[in-house]
Amino acid sequence: MRAVKKTIAGPGVEYVTDAPEPRPGDGEVLVEVAAASLCGTDREVHEWSPSAQAFRIDLPVTLGHEGAGTVLEVGADVRGLKVGDRVALESHLVCGRCFPCRTGDAHTCERTRILGLHIDGVFAERVAVPADICVRLPEGVSLETGALLEAAGVGVHAVQRSGYEVAGRGVLVSGGGPVGLATAALASTMGAAYTIVVEPNPFRRAQAEKLGVEALEPGEAAAERCRELARGRGGADVAFECSGAPSALASLFDAVRANGTVVTVGHPGRPVPVDIAAHINKKGITLRGIFGRRLWDTWEQTLLLVDSGRLELDWLVTHRMRLSETADAIDLLAGEAAKILLKPGLG
Amino acid sequence: MRAVKKTIAGPGVEYVTDAPEPRPGDGEVLVEVAAASLCGTDREVHEWSPSAQAFRIDLPVTLGHEGAGTVLEVGADVRGLKVGDRVALESHLVCGRCFPCRTGDAHTCERTRILGLHIDGVFAERVAVPADICVRLPEGVSLETGALLEAAGVGVHAVQRSGYEVAGRGVLVSGGGPVGLATAALASTMGAAYTIVVEPNPFRRAQAEKLGVEALEPGEAAAERCRELARGRGGADVAFECSGAPSALASLFDAVRANGTVVTVGHPGRPVPVDIAAHINKKGITLRGIFGRRLWDTWEQTLLLVDSGRLELDWLVTHRMRLSETADAIDLLAGEAAKILLKPGLG
Amino acid sequence: MRAVKKTIAGPGVEYVTDAPEPRPGDGEVLVEVAAASLCGTDREVHEWSPSAQAFRIDLPVTLGHEGAGTVLEVGADVRGLKVGDRVALESHLVCGRCFPCRTGDAHTCERTRILGLHIDGVFAERVAVPADICVRLPEGVSLETGALLEAAGVGVHAVQRSGYEVAGRGVLVSGGGPVGLATAALASTMGAAYTIVVEPNPFRRAQAEKLGVEALEPGEAAAERCRELARGRGGADVAFECSGAPSALASLFDAVRANGTVVTVGHPGRPVPVDIAAHINKKGITLRGIFGRRLWDTWEQTLLLVDSGRLELDWLVTHRMRLSETADAIDLLAGEAAKILLKPGLG
Amino acid sequence: MRAVKKTIAGPGVEYVTDAPEPRPGDGEVLVEVAAASLCGTDREVHEWSPSAQAFRIDLPVTLGHEGAGTVLEVGADVRGLKVGDRVALESHLVCGRCFPCRTGDAHTCERTRILGLHIDGVFAERVAVPADICVRLPEGVSLETGALLEAAGVGVHAVQRSGYEVAGRGVLVSGGGPVGLATAALASTMGAAYTIVVEPNPFRRAQAEKLGVEALEPGEAAAERCRELARGRGGADVAFECSGAPSALASLFDAVRANGTVVTVGHPGRPVPVDIAAHINKKGITLRGIFGRRLWDTWEQTLLLVDSGRLELDWLVTHRMRLSETADAIDLLAGEAAKILLKPGLG
Repeated sequence: MRAVKKTIAGPGVEYVTDAPEPRPGDGEVLVEVAAASLCGTDREVHEWSPSAQAFRIDLPVTLGHEGAGTVLEVGADVRGLKVGDRVALESHLVCGRCFPCRTGDAHTCERTRILGLHIDGVFAERVAVPADICVRLPEGVSLETGALLEAAGVGVHAVQRSGYEVAGRGVLVSGGGPVGLATAALASTMGAAYTIVVEPNPFRRAQAEKLGVEALEPGEAAAERCRELARGRGGADVAFECSGAPSALASLFDAVRANGTVVTVGHPGRPVPVDIAAHINKKGITLRGIFGRRLWDTWEQTLLLVDSGRLELDWLVTHRMRLSETADAIDLLAGEAAKILLKPGLG
Repeated sequence: MRAVKKTIAGPGVEYVTDAPEPRPGDGEVLVEVAAASLCGTDREVHEWSPSAQAFRIDLPVTLGHEGAGTVLEVGADVRGLKVGDRVALESHLVCGRCFPCRTGDAHTCERTRILGLHIDGVFAERVAVPADICVRLPEGVSLETGALLEAAGVGVHAVQRSGYEVAGRGVLVSGGGPVGLATAALASTMGAAYTIVVEPNPFRRAQAEKLGVEALEPGEAAAERCRELARGRGGADVAFECSGAPSALASLFDAVRANGTVVTVGHPGRPVPVDIAAHINKKGITLRGIFGRRLWDTWEQTLLLVDSGRLELDWLVTHRMRLSETADAIDLLAGEAAKILLKPGLG
Repeated sequence: MRAVKKTIAGPGVEYVTDAPEPRPGDGEVLVEVAAASLCGTDREVHEWSPSAQAFRIDLPVTLGHEGAGTVLEVGADVRGLKVGDRVALESHLVCGRCFPCRTGDAHTCERTRILGLHIDGVFAERVAVPADICVRLPEGVSLETGALLEAAGVGVHAVQRSGYEVAGRGVLVSGGGPVGLATAALASTMGAAYTIVVEPNPFRRAQAEKLGVEALEPGEAAAERCRELARGRGGADVAFECSGAPSALASLFDAVRANGTVVTVGHPGRPVPVDIAAHINKKGITLRGIFGRRLWDTWEQTLLLVDSGRLELDWLVTHRMRLSETADAIDLLAGEAAKILLKPGLG
Repeated sequence: MRAVKKTIAGPGVEYVTDAPEPRPGDGEVLVEVAAASLCGTDREVHEWSPSAQAFRIDLPVTLGHEGAGTVLEVGADVRGLKVGDRVALESHLVCGRCFPCRTGDAHTCERTRILGLHIDGVFAERVAVPADICVRLPEGVSLETGALLEAAGVGVHAVQRSGYEVAGRGVLVSGGGPVGLATAALASTMGAAYTIVVEPNPFRRAQAEKLGVEALEPGEAAAERCRELARGRGGADVAFECSGAPSALASLFDAVRANGTVVTVGHPGRPVPVDIAAHINKKGITLRGIFGRRLWDTWEQTLLLVDSGRLELDWLVTHRMRLSETADAIDLLAGEAAKILLKPGLG
């Protein structure tokens, strides 16, 4: 079987054509991968950055944690899935027994394992996964869209975490990568009065503008523009940090109004200074973050948004490539690309 | 001055041409009324129904509590308003000193007085009102739209009261009058996956459909349709009762899913039976209601929605009439009409 | 084995000495019952009231849904429990697959089955139960206290459902049965400025007074007293309806302040009239209810309260009786009793 | 009149005996100060630290922002106060017109002025203050207690800001000064299962222990102790940072469980590094802060707590001193003192 693997604790990924055929164990299903999507983590893993190393990857492993496909085979003790079902995959495997898991916060499970890092992932022709992480797709939702739902769910979770306070509000998004763009699109869909995306890459700014939102280069202009549009409210109501750039956070604190909310989605590589006195105390800003998606709130809401046509995701896809082109695809991520799909069926 | 007055504790309203010219007292401004809007309360007052009598109207009084116009004169001790300012009017005059007023819940002020019921209202050429209830309109918002903001604010408040849980959710609205339609429009603007309006009047159902939402006659079909669209969630996520019909509430409890929210906007004329065991306890539904608008949260959010173009209200207006036609206008309310504007400038 | 069973669809319960010995199946454990607690539902089942019939009990069944004991035997596929573990039992068996179960609201599971109604319960020497409903007791918590945790959890859930708004607030509790008393005790433990229990039974009022809270007969005095103690706030901040009496709710709406919260815990036998216009809309009261305990939030919080000594429950126990005395014990429930424990070890 | 003033932009405070007699203007009252309380800000002002300078004090000014006394004279246009009323003072003078003020968040007013920094304060025999900041004391509450309410309100606000999630929870407080101790006392009053205070000063640790809470030196032990007491929950549920020490925050993030809440009360003198990836995103901690008290929620709740006897404050007072001893009193603040009251009546 063809697959893309990480085999050594160092830079690089490996395309192989002789990966062993996966078999579904108890509680598992075998899925034929129709589309898999690249994300920033894949680049970190390729580069073997400190944050990639922090994941304590189980080497060797087949990469890929965003994907969708069709059930080929059903293991023992599986309920609710059958051969032929079209499914998207949640990438987090949670333990079900820790305090967060038992109290409705499984997205912060203390023992989370991740598809494509701790068990073989979806950059392959076929993958055996726990039935628990399979989400059946509604009829009208394509497998390509299915492969985008894990990432879109991050945006939905970010909005949930803000208390849904985007409708009739001003929204600022830092970072115009796929998650930032999805978050901006969601804010608009949910009635934001204005949405501003801050992003240094002109290609990404152009993509934001296609969404009908304003796009600005990083700098003081964003805070000024928020205050101007806010008409006396003092700034944006909600800001989403989706770039991971350590310097972005302070500018968001500056741009949101008193009592506003800042949600962090990107993972900065180092601690970020926060002016507690001025921003958290006196200005009364709430700082919250997300990791993954709420299980299974976020998926339910994302599916309803997509199935009803309220959320379109196809525009996020800029490239469709072969498994054998994965290294090239990763190189593209920093440039003129949004979502890149790997399609095992292309050969 | 021309005006429409309630002078006796019984049915009827009176059009007069010799109303005394209002003068702004301390803290007041004189406003030239550009447009005033009728609402269901005006019909109750005309018919002198029990719920109208319950308002303990200060007779005689000039009617009309939804309106907008231009400041003609500014009384002593007024800050922040000047001649020529275009303003919409909040209809509730709150005391500022009771517990709700002091703790951010002035919409439930224990001593609320209402424009057009307890002080002279806007069904007149000019009106003197406390500066506190004047909301300056952004440049791009017309005075006609301004006259619709009090009613639109009811819809915005209803959504606020639901915890904003409409985006990517299923929404059911009972009642297709102006407030029900505005609420349905708001739910769509804010990303509802589906919105269903239940309404017996075919004209109103047709208006709902123009909004792009589904419209059904009252009956079991609404609950079934919600369950069908909910795809396994068990029903609508949020329901808004905007009809005031006592029978509507039970059908909403039936149609929403477990842990859903029901917000009551309409004021039924009598107590309504609620199955506490089945709906509030076992099904876990939260029941909350609204009265007026949050001061001034709701106005801020409504203005931003209107000013940004996210919320259009003009389609709500089906008639523009003269002050002298007020009695006819009230008769129209129950039939093929949504919002009727009285325009003193028409003569 | 000795046990108390419901064998026919009519009044009565049956004490037997030849019940078959239960065997733990896959995922189950066998528990030696140390103490079982009676609740109002047991009386309904004994009397075969309409609300008992509504449970669709699986006859014949061993009764009893509140209990604690020691693990005697562990079935296949059980994790985290071993012989000798001391456990309390959650009484709700949830499906784990419906929308509420998948989104953190398993207490409103669409397919809840109840211990002692749909599977054999704890009014017996031994019971085989799913390991999932076993909660291991901390060392310092006795098995008798363990048998009270299911009921105490109802009070904890009630406070959770009020948004914890009891500290420094005024609290009104309608009903001085075990759940009402536990709720009043919890409100005091959590810092309520004043707590008033309304209860017609003088024995129960005396018990409430032993808790240090005020106890009043039903009537207008409670609302007046709340307003007096509220010093200008307009009434109690939170009210808990724990009596199940249909007439109680209106008096709570009267006694709470504007924007207060009413939580229903008791299950009235018929729909209750609610004045939507006056209470839910104009006064802005939020109505919410509970059923069972949040899984597993409520248990976690209850255990920490009990284990830390902040919540004492022993005073709730007024009688300790034999399994053979169950019918007599049920008769006592309406009179001078709070919690009655059945102790199989007594013979 | 005797008073303590700040007259120059540099270190020091000045005790004067010839301060001009204050006169109440429109909307003001003259208050005879019975007790004034020192707080850490007074020390900053004395030392003329950067954070004192950041307040942009209006020099010269009579210092003192926490106090209570008796109304001696009532200015024009004052409602609700009369000569002889006993009042505590809110220290923040808010504008009433900015967005936070108009939407229920006046504690974050954009134009807040502070008693004793921007208008003459309570370190004097008499003070003229806006009637708006006077809070009438219930009969049973002493003027000394009244002088402690501004500070106690900070603790109440901190708990409000945590979502009241202290009952049946584990609480960690960093800093054992008066606000930290009041917060710890409030957490216990509100049912915290355990409360731990971390504080380097042994005198303060001893005071915490008198409250019945655990007191530890800063270091890793606190996090370990929280995890031990948490019995599988992973740490404290809520942490309050009341020390202002920049290094404290990271240790709180370490000690709270996943999805816990950290509330900052102290104002660190410089930005503090926050590990967004590990704490805000992956661990899902919410970071919120406070400044002052919610107007007037916090006061209402504090008064009810004090008036009902649920919250005792007298133990906070370690010293009662003369106005002429203010400089000495400030020196004591860092050592073996909690609350120091200045009593103008002592001479």
